Amino acid sequence: MARARSTTSSIAQIIILLLISFFSSPSSAAYPAATKKKQYKPCKHLVLFFHDIIYNGENAANATSAMVGAPAGANLTILADKFHFGNMVVFDDPITLDNNLHSPPVGRAQGMYVYDTKNTYTAWLGFSFVLNTTDYQGSINFIGADPLMNKTRDISVVGGTGDFFMHRGVATVMTDSFEGEVYFRLSVDINFYECW
Amino acid sequence: MARARSTTSSIAQIIILLLISFFSSPSSAAYPAATKKKQYKPCKHLVLFFHDIIYNGENAANATSAMVGAPAGANLTILADKFHFGNMVVFDDPITLDNNLHSPPVGRAQGMYVYDTKNTYTAWLGFSFVLNTTDYQGSINFIGADPLMNKTRDISVVGGTGDFFMHRGVATVMTDSFEGEVYFRLSVDINFYECW
Amino acid sequence: MARARSTTSSIAQIIILLLISFFSSPSSAAYPAATKKKQYKPCKHLVLFFHDIIYNGENAANATSAMVGAPAGANLTILADKFHFGNMVVFDDPITLDNNLHSPPVGRAQGMYVYDTKNTYTAWLGFSFVLNTTDYQGSINFIGADPLMNKTRDISVVGGTGDFFMHRGVATVMTDSFEGEVYFRLSVDINFYECW
Repeated sequence: MARARSTTSSIAQIIILLLISFFSSPSSAAYPAATKKKQYKPCKHLVLFFHDIIYNGENAANATSAMVGAPAGANLTILADKFHFGNMVVFDDPITLDNNLHSPPVGRAQGMYVYDTKNTYTAWLGFSFVLNTTDYQGSINFIGADPLMNKTRDISVVGGTGDFFMHRGVATVMTDSFEGEVYFRLSVDINFYECW
Repeated sequence: MARARSTTSSIAQIIILLLISFFSSPSSAAYPAATKKKQYKPCKHLVLFFHDIIYNGENAANATSAMVGAPAGANLTILADKFHFGNMVVFDDPITLDNNLHSPPVGRAQGMYVYDTKNTYTAWLGFSFVLNTTDYQGSINFIGADPLMNKTRDISVVGGTGDFFMHRGVATVMTDSFEGEVYFRLSVDINFYECW
Repeated sequence: MARARSTTSSIAQIIILLLISFFSSPSSAAYPAATKKKQYKPCKHLVLFFHDIIYNGENAANATSAMVGAPAGANLTILADKFHFGNMVVFDDPITLDNNLHSPPVGRAQGMYVYDTKNTYTAWLGFSFVLNTTDYQGSINFIGADPLMNKTRDISVVGGTGDFFMHRGVATVMTDSFEGEVYFRLSVDINFYECW
């Protein structure tokens, strides 16, 4: 490096270093920038499971979700038939830390999804995780497209409250297990990139 | 304070003060940080009321909202019965500055909620405030879980337009009054933490 | 401009310029600030069209969306009648780069909207653009109020994944064309102000 010739240039160097360190600090890396495909490090990370038991007319005691409505028209079920196109499912599912339905729940996944394709299984999700544990108290709010036949699906964490105050991030949803069209277990890998 | 010995060190002091003031300014405090439980000061604050008059088959003239659909299955109403589980309510409610339904509306609360629990009243909300006053023109977009039996419920402000361009925040919803299952008045205490 | 009298003041000028340029740079302009009505420059801009063909009981092969449910009550259609108040529409619409329904689709617009006013056409939107092109891979998530009779309607971009990782912005929706109540073509002018 160039030798400092005077106090004046030393100060200039210090200031330049300060500015450089500001621009390259981890927190500034989390700020918006027009470039894409950067690898950001999450400021918080959670993996949770939730369990969806769909009401089939006979399991009212155990069901945690229910299909609502059907496409309007002369024959209500023509579109809904195979891929449930047009059906909305409302749910209140237990959240667990592992993949066991009978583990003690740490909260509830509450909200809705609509089946939105005629020729495959896709859904649009709008829901919240309401967590109530010693580690986490608060809610996490999600929306996004869920192409169910893909191994992993990324949705947006658009806000949060309590311990997740103002958080944003991306969550990767995976179908961990399913039994017919009654039981679905989803794992959700939540990466927060704005933590406040 | 240390006496300035030369022009050079005076400049250094000014710059350091500038940098310190930048790092500790209120706007920089609003940036993401991994620490939690900080007390942030909102950059904007609004308290508004909205009034939900649910359609009961007889009040079409006055109703501002309507229940839609019912859980599918052999008996459509088994799940929906007591806590409306699975029912969606669509609404277009007047917004007022105080708790009087007959005050001049300053906008409309428009959107939907789904009742999502079998054994208590909880809902998932997705809606917008569309404001049209001399003070505020624009929309505020909300989503979040609403456990109705809690005194206060926090939901996310996930975006906005017009005077609320790109805003984010947290809103605290309270049931200010209700009459049976027809009239609900909610107060919404909106704290914006990103104001642009 | 003032002449530089010494090395010291030259350095001061450089630093001040650096600080000014930092505070006024495009990226810092994208940070939250309490002042309103600023003109921000988007960090990314997209114009896309999507095409909504509503199921009418006879067009199952071509339909890309379907109305679901109807307000509950003795007479299911009283409220829904003219302006579809209370009806939900679920959609999976092709997205194109121009206004031609038959152009090669670059993705799908998937989600739902609810008609939410009794005396005019307004809707509340929750949907995603799922893009799959050589230029863009990823999803963009939207919510907001849609007063259909207005020429332009602003909604929020609340998050994104893939090439739109963590993006936020405002989208201006316009009804580009419609045929009766079966075909709607919407243009969406998306301005991202947080691009990461």
